[in-house]
Amino acid sequence: MKKISFEEIMDMEQRYRSTLLNSLSGFKNAHLIGTVGLRKDTNLGIFSSIVHIGANPPHLGFIMRPLTVPRGTYHNIKAKKYFTVNHVNEEILDRAHQTSANYPWRTSEFEECNLTEEYTDRHPAPYVKESKVKLGLEFVEEHHIKANGTLFLVGKVVEVILPEELITDDGYFQAAEAGSLACNGLDAYYRTEQIKRLAYARPGQEVKLVGG
Amino acid sequence: MKKISFEEIMDMEQRYRSTLLNSLSGFKNAHLIGTVGLRKDTNLGIFSSIVHIGANPPHLGFIMRPLTVPRGTYHNIKAKKYFTVNHVNEEILDRAHQTSANYPWRTSEFEECNLTEEYTDRHPAPYVKESKVKLGLEFVEEHHIKANGTLFLVGKVVEVILPEELITDDGYFQAAEAGSLACNGLDAYYRTEQIKRLAYARPGQEVKLVGG
Repeated sequence: MKKISFEEIMDMEQRYRSTLLNSLSGFKNAHLIGTVGLRKDTNLGIFSSIVHIGANPPHLGFIMRPLTVPRGTYHNIKAKKYFTVNHVNEEILDRAHQTSANYPWRTSEFEECNLTEEYTDRHPAPYVKESKVKLGLEFVEEHHIKANGTLFLVGKVVEVILPEELITDDGYFQAAEAGSLACNGLDAYYRTEQIKRLAYARPGQEVKLVGG
Repeated sequence: MKKISFEEIMDMEQRYRSTLLNSLSGFKNAHLIGTVGLRKDTNLGIFSSIVHIGANPPHLGFIMRPLTVPRGTYHNIKAKKYFTVNHVNEEILDRAHQTSANYPWRTSEFEECNLTEEYTDRHPAPYVKESKVKLGLEFVEEHHIKANGTLFLVGKVVEVILPEELITDDGYFQAAEAGSLACNGLDAYYRTEQIKRLAYARPGQEVKLVGG
């Protein structure tokens, strides 16, 4: 086992450090965030920092990098108050990754990356038609991370679109069966295989399987 | 495809809604957070909300549920300012899940769940000896999520302990090869299989493999 100190991390070549640190937080999701601006210009970007905040009422949050350059996703969310979160599956992986390219301001990644906008009556933000799990969110608050200028944005889930047959009797949505991917680091994508579901843990009881 | 509205989510039975919403954010990590209090009492809890915040300087954040009950992890972090993040692997999965049981205040989950405390000279928080990827963090800031009273805690990475041979030449740490798990929802654990690493995307260029 190798021990690496803060000082050694700070001494690393910048790109190496970024690749290493991004992979140390372990597995995460790969989702496309879709937005629209005041002039109806759409934006689509891949994010891997979406976290569950609460179920009642339903909220998610995600990390937005510092506003050192114009960021279409942030700009549109502040302008129109809505955004969508769309799970990435293997079929659209290359196109989803391509949304991370640095396109000119107000170019739509939907068009550039060959993904299709899809709308509902509930809110103005575009979903990704090719995604199988789509969440519509209303922006509710943001927090400025003083440590490095990143932002933590929070949205309320106002709509969910998914294959209903993948929800188990107890409410668990089987994301792996929907083809949703995991990722690690900046650029590594993974499919997953379930080991097991473990029942609610209680002191002094053996760990059991769900339903076991 | 089924469309579920905010109102339908709010009408769901509480446990069903919690299980569903926790699984809709997709894949995430499964990590043990280790802490110690002022009286040297240790605490260990499983978390799935750790997110990368930045590499330069290195920071991670995570979501802490509302303080409606005493929370050992939060109490200790505020008291001693340090915590550890330890990747869960398949060998310790059952013991890691068991740390989520509601043990009496100041009971150590290390002891109750048969996991071993490990210390370095850098800071006072305990690592999990049986974990293969361990990060030591210094608490730097917290944010109160107004939507539901959860907290977003941020720490600076001051130490990393890992199998060095799993870092590729460009700095990517291969978490899957270290046996780190992904999870989904409240209780489902997954092993992963890499599909591919994709190179930095550029406008007008075809998506390429890393090194390709």
